Amino acid sequence: MGKVLMEITMSLDGYVAGPDVGPDEVMGRGGERLHEWMFAGESSDDTDRRETDHFGNVGALIMGRRMVDLGIGPWGEEPPFHAPCFVVTHRPAETIVKKGGTSYIFVTEGIDAAMARAREAAGEQDVMVNGGADIDRQYLNAGLIDEIRLHLAHIVLGGGTPLFAGVRPDLRLVPIRATHGPLATHLTYRLDASAVRS
Amino acid sequence: MGKVLMEITMSLDGYVAGPDVGPDEVMGRGGERLHEWMFAGESSDDTDRRETDHFGNVGALIMGRRMVDLGIGPWGEEPPFHAPCFVVTHRPAETIVKKGGTSYIFVTEGIDAAMARAREAAGEQDVMVNGGADIDRQYLNAGLIDEIRLHLAHIVLGGGTPLFAGVRPDLRLVPIRATHGPLATHLTYRLDASAVRS
Repeated sequence: MGKVLMEITMSLDGYVAGPDVGPDEVMGRGGERLHEWMFAGESSDDTDRRETDHFGNVGALIMGRRMVDLGIGPWGEEPPFHAPCFVVTHRPAETIVKKGGTSYIFVTEGIDAAMARAREAAGEQDVMVNGGADIDRQYLNAGLIDEIRLHLAHIVLGGGTPLFAGVRPDLRLVPIRATHGPLATHLTYRLDASAVRS
Repeated sequence: MGKVLMEITMSLDGYVAGPDVGPDEVMGRGGERLHEWMFAGESSDDTDRRETDHFGNVGALIMGRRMVDLGIGPWGEEPPFHAPCFVVTHRPAETIVKKGGTSYIFVTEGIDAAMARAREAAGEQDVMVNGGADIDRQYLNAGLIDEIRLHLAHIVLGGGTPLFAGVRPDLRLVPIRATHGPLATHLTYRLDASAVRS
């Protein structure tokens, strides 16, 4: 069985999106600066390695409905996921199949059911919990994340969607790796299951 | 002229103290976990180097009144600063002289006056802006910090005193160094003066 990964980019003041997220500004005000590290400034070696880390062994993803509603347009007809995406939602919807192996499968039975289906689809590969912040928090609090890859962008957003608000304070993070790029610090933690699954 | 440094330890969710700071719990609820990296778990080499970084070339410090009111007891008769500490306050008070070179000098004319006096006292050495969060924010927003050493403890506090709330979002942080310890990641940034002093 693979691992359950969470990967997200956060500002120094703890936000994963700027203020006023909406269809016209899917990352919120100023929030597109969070992801600049993905596209520029980092050494290609590092980027290559991270891209491999990120998508290389991921066999299924989990996302929140709001994120998919906002992202499905920009992600286009051949989305970057190349794997089934299980969408946690209260509103049932038909599966949407895109090119390149990506499909959006809507799960209305809660986070545990979405995880069970993602694990089954992933088989020996990893499951990636891919946001938004609310879904990430729910999985963190349920003790279902094995490893978190936190990209800490060197910016201050001043407001927006906080990642860790409402996350249980007894969360135990064991550092595995830190690398420093010109636009972000890349931190990998293992979640200590003894703290969160008890 | 030396540099103006800021050094502070923050939780992953952005807090520099836990909830309910008071005389009986000077770091707030759970907040003492922030500073565990200073006392345990880090390799002695790293600790030595950081201690040297921290106090080696500091000729004067700046602190907020509340921090001094809470800290002056615990810091004792020979405080760890070994330099004059300029305390930004609205309430005038007599200078307090301790052993080992530490004195607490109360400045009522605002942050610029405190900086001028600290720079004068430090001469060629560095000035350290030493907290609390409110004083740190004021100096960050005034563009008076050259370098920030941010120790990111691998913990979630769930509430408390946020470091970056109210800091100007156009703050430009240029990474200099990142090291990873078992209890904290140590991040050093240069503040890009072109962004904050304009």
